[in-house]
Amino acid sequence: MELEVLTIGTELLLGLTIDTNAAHIARTLAPLGARVVRKSTVGDDRDAIRSALTDALARAGFVLATGGLGPTRDDVTKTAIAEVFRAPLELDHELLAALERRFAAFRRGPMPPSNRSQAEVPRGAVVLPNRLGTAPGLWLDGGPGTAVLLPGVPFEMRALLADQVVPRLRDRIGAASAGTSVRWRTLRTTGIAESALASAVGDVEHALAPVTLAYLPGWEGVDLRFTVWGLPAPEADDAMGRAVARVTPILGAHHYGEGEQDLAALVLERVRARGLRLAVAESCTGGLLGGRLTAVPGASDVFAGGVIAYEDAAKVRDLEVPPRMLAEHGAVSETVAAAMAEGAARRFATGAAIAVTGIAGPAGGTRDKPVGTVCLGVTVHGKVRTVRTRLHGDREEIRHRSAQAGLNLLRLALQEETAAP
Amino acid sequence: MELEVLTIGTELLLGLTIDTNAAHIARTLAPLGARVVRKSTVGDDRDAIRSALTDALARAGFVLATGGLGPTRDDVTKTAIAEVFRAPLELDHELLAALERRFAAFRRGPMPPSNRSQAEVPRGAVVLPNRLGTAPGLWLDGGPGTAVLLPGVPFEMRALLADQVVPRLRDRIGAASAGTSVRWRTLRTTGIAESALASAVGDVEHALAPVTLAYLPGWEGVDLRFTVWGLPAPEADDAMGRAVARVTPILGAHHYGEGEQDLAALVLERVRARGLRLAVAESCTGGLLGGRLTAVPGASDVFAGGVIAYEDAAKVRDLEVPPRMLAEHGAVSETVAAAMAEGAARRFATGAAIAVTGIAGPAGGTRDKPVGTVCLGVTVHGKVRTVRTRLHGDREEIRHRSAQAGLNLLRLALQEETAAP
Repeated sequence: MELEVLTIGTELLLGLTIDTNAAHIARTLAPLGARVVRKSTVGDDRDAIRSALTDALARAGFVLATGGLGPTRDDVTKTAIAEVFRAPLELDHELLAALERRFAAFRRGPMPPSNRSQAEVPRGAVVLPNRLGTAPGLWLDGGPGTAVLLPGVPFEMRALLADQVVPRLRDRIGAASAGTSVRWRTLRTTGIAESALASAVGDVEHALAPVTLAYLPGWEGVDLRFTVWGLPAPEADDAMGRAVARVTPILGAHHYGEGEQDLAALVLERVRARGLRLAVAESCTGGLLGGRLTAVPGASDVFAGGVIAYEDAAKVRDLEVPPRMLAEHGAVSETVAAAMAEGAARRFATGAAIAVTGIAGPAGGTRDKPVGTVCLGVTVHGKVRTVRTRLHGDREEIRHRSAQAGLNLLRLALQEETAAP
Repeated sequence: MELEVLTIGTELLLGLTIDTNAAHIARTLAPLGARVVRKSTVGDDRDAIRSALTDALARAGFVLATGGLGPTRDDVTKTAIAEVFRAPLELDHELLAALERRFAAFRRGPMPPSNRSQAEVPRGAVVLPNRLGTAPGLWLDGGPGTAVLLPGVPFEMRALLADQVVPRLRDRIGAASAGTSVRWRTLRTTGIAESALASAVGDVEHALAPVTLAYLPGWEGVDLRFTVWGLPAPEADDAMGRAVARVTPILGAHHYGEGEQDLAALVLERVRARGLRLAVAESCTGGLLGGRLTAVPGASDVFAGGVIAYEDAAKVRDLEVPPRMLAEHGAVSETVAAAMAEGAARRFATGAAIAVTGIAGPAGGTRDKPVGTVCLGVTVHGKVRTVRTRLHGDREEIRHRSAQAGLNLLRLALQEETAAP
C-alpha cells in the first residue's frame, strides 16, 4: 500500500519549525507495509491545501495530512477537504458536547466560540477522538480516495496515529497484502570515504536484490542501510540476512557496529572489558571527545578525565610534551600526538589514552599542514599508535570527525592487541 | 518571487533522517523576498524525481532541489533533471580535473571511477563549485523554468546556498522585492522557564499586534520569536521595532542576544574585551563546555584550556580541591564548584574560569541531590560567584543545559563587574 503525507502549516513552510511529524508517520507506518511515496508541505492557505490534497489523492489514492485543525483562524484544512470530497461541514452534536465537557474539566470557563468550529465535520467523515487535545482527527473515504486528517501538535498527532490510524490501516492492509512488510538494517563504518566504500562493494550490490543498499555519510562515518520491501516476513528476514552476510566481510575493520551503535560507548565497553581506564588529551577538539565519552551513561567507572590543552603551554605543563618537540615538529604532528597521549595516560594513571591535535580552521592552515590536518595518538598499556589524516568539512565537521577518528584509532589498537599472541 | 523546494532521498521519505535542509533554505531565502510556497520530498527514484521536478516547475517556475548528487548509485537527480530539461549529460573536463586534484590533495589514491559521474553536467547548466565536497551544485535555466540542484549533505548545501545561490537570487529579485514581506526577529533568553517568561510578558502580548509572539524552548534557553506578515516593508519594520522595544525590558538580564547569537561566542568576546583569558573545569559536562567554547572560530586567543576532572582524584590533583572539602560537601556543591573554578584559573593563569559539577543521571541521584542538581562556579579577577540549580531533562539535556548555565553565570559576573564602580 502506498500513501502520501501532507503537512500543513506556514511555520513549516517558512522553516521556522522543523517538520518532525512526517518522519514519525513514515517510520510508524512502514512496518505495516504502508509506504510513504511522497511528502509535501503547504502553508495555511485553503487553495494551496486543496490543490495539494487533490494532487496527492490523484497520485496515490491515500493521503495522510497533519496540521490546520485547531480553533484559530489559520486552520483551514477541514474546509479544504470538505471541498475536495464535496462533503459539506456539519455540526457534530456528540463532538460538541465532548468539547464542552473537556473545557469544563480543565476549568477554562465556558468554551470560546472559536472552538465551536472544531465540532464541525465533513458529512460522512469518521471522527477519531483526540484524548490529548481539542481537535479530533478525521477519516474520509470517498470518490477521490481516502484522506486522514490529524492535528499538527506532535504529541497529539502521535497518540492519534498509534491509537486510531494504525489499527485501521492494519485491518485494511491485512486484507490486501497478507503480511508483506519492510525490513531495514544499518551497518556502521568509519575511516573510509563514501566513494571508496562504494567501489569496494561494487557489483556485489546487484547480487543483493531484493535488498537495496544506501550509503549515508555523516560525521561519524558512512552508514550502509539495507532495505527490503513488500516481501512476506520470513522471506524478507532471509534476504536481509544473506545481504548483510555478503557485504560485511567487504567492510573489514571499517565496520564497527550496527543500527544506532555509538563508537564512544563501544570503546568504553572494550576498555572496561580489558580492565583498563581511559584519559584524553584534546587540542583542536577542545573537549568534544570527552563530551562524547561522558555522554554514555555509566562512563565514570572507565573514564578518568582529561586535559583540554588548547594552548601549547598546557601541552608542556600538563602533558609533559617537550617544548623542543613542539618547536621542531609543530603542535600538529604525530610525534606530539603520541607525547600527548602518553602524558594523559601518565597524569591520570590510566592504561589507555587518546590524544587529538589538528587544524580545524577556518584560519591556521599552511601549505604543509592545510586546514583539516589532524594527528591522533593512542596508547594502550604503554604501546603507542599514531595516525596523521586530512579531514574535510568546516570547523565543526572537522572537530567532530577528529573525535570520531580518535575513538576509532583506540578501537583498532585494542583490537590489534587482542589479536596479538 | 515564489519557488518550491524539493528534497530528495529515500532516507528522508522513510523518516530515517529528519529533513533540516528544507527549513534552512526557506529561512535563508525569505529575507530576499523569495517565498517557498511548497516543499516536497521524494525518494531516490528517477521517475518520482522527474515527476516532482516537472510538477514544481509547472506550478512555480522555480525549483530548488537538494540531494541525490553524490557518487553512489542511488544518486539519480542529475539524470532526472537532464530529462526534464532535455539537456543531455556531458563530461565537464574542468570539473573532472578539479575532482582529481581534490582526491590527490586528500591522499586517497586515484579517484574511484564512481566519482567520474560527478563531473557530468546537463548541457548548458552553470556549475556551482562546492569547496567542501565532491558534488557541485547546478543551476539550469530553460524552457521548463529554473532549477537549482544542491547536494544533500547539510554543511555542503548550506555553504553552496550562501555562496552561490543567494547572490544570484538577489540579483534576479532585485528591486522587485519592494512589495509586502515577512519579518521576524528572535530574542534569546536563558535561565528562565517558558511558563515564567509567558507570565512576565502577560497581556503585553496583545498590545504587540500586528506582531505575533511565539515561545521556543530549547537546550540553550527560551527564544521569543516575533513575526509580522504581509505588510509593506517599512510598516513591517516599524511594527517590529515597537514590539521588540516593548518586550525587551521585561526580559531583563535573562535576555542575552538576538537571532542565532551563541552564548559561548558572546562570552568569549566579553572576556577578550576585558583583556582576560579563560579556562574551564568540567565534571558532569565532561568536555562539553570546552567543546562549546572552541566551536567558536578564533577562540584560541582567549581560551587557554581546561581540566576534565571527571574522577574526584583529578579535582584534587589538578584543581587543588581539598580532599576534606570533597568529603564534607560532596563533589556536587557550590563550595567545590568555587574551588574548581579557582583551581582552573590558577593552573592556566587566566583571569576568568568556569566550573561545572553536577549529577547528570540516570544514576547517582540522592534525596538531597536528585538527578539534575548542578553547581556552577565562575571566577573573574579572583572574585568568585556560584550557583546551585536543578535542571530538567535526560542526561544529555542536563549536560547541555549545565554548559549553558555555566556560560551564563560568567556572562552575569562580567556584567556585574562592569556595572560596579
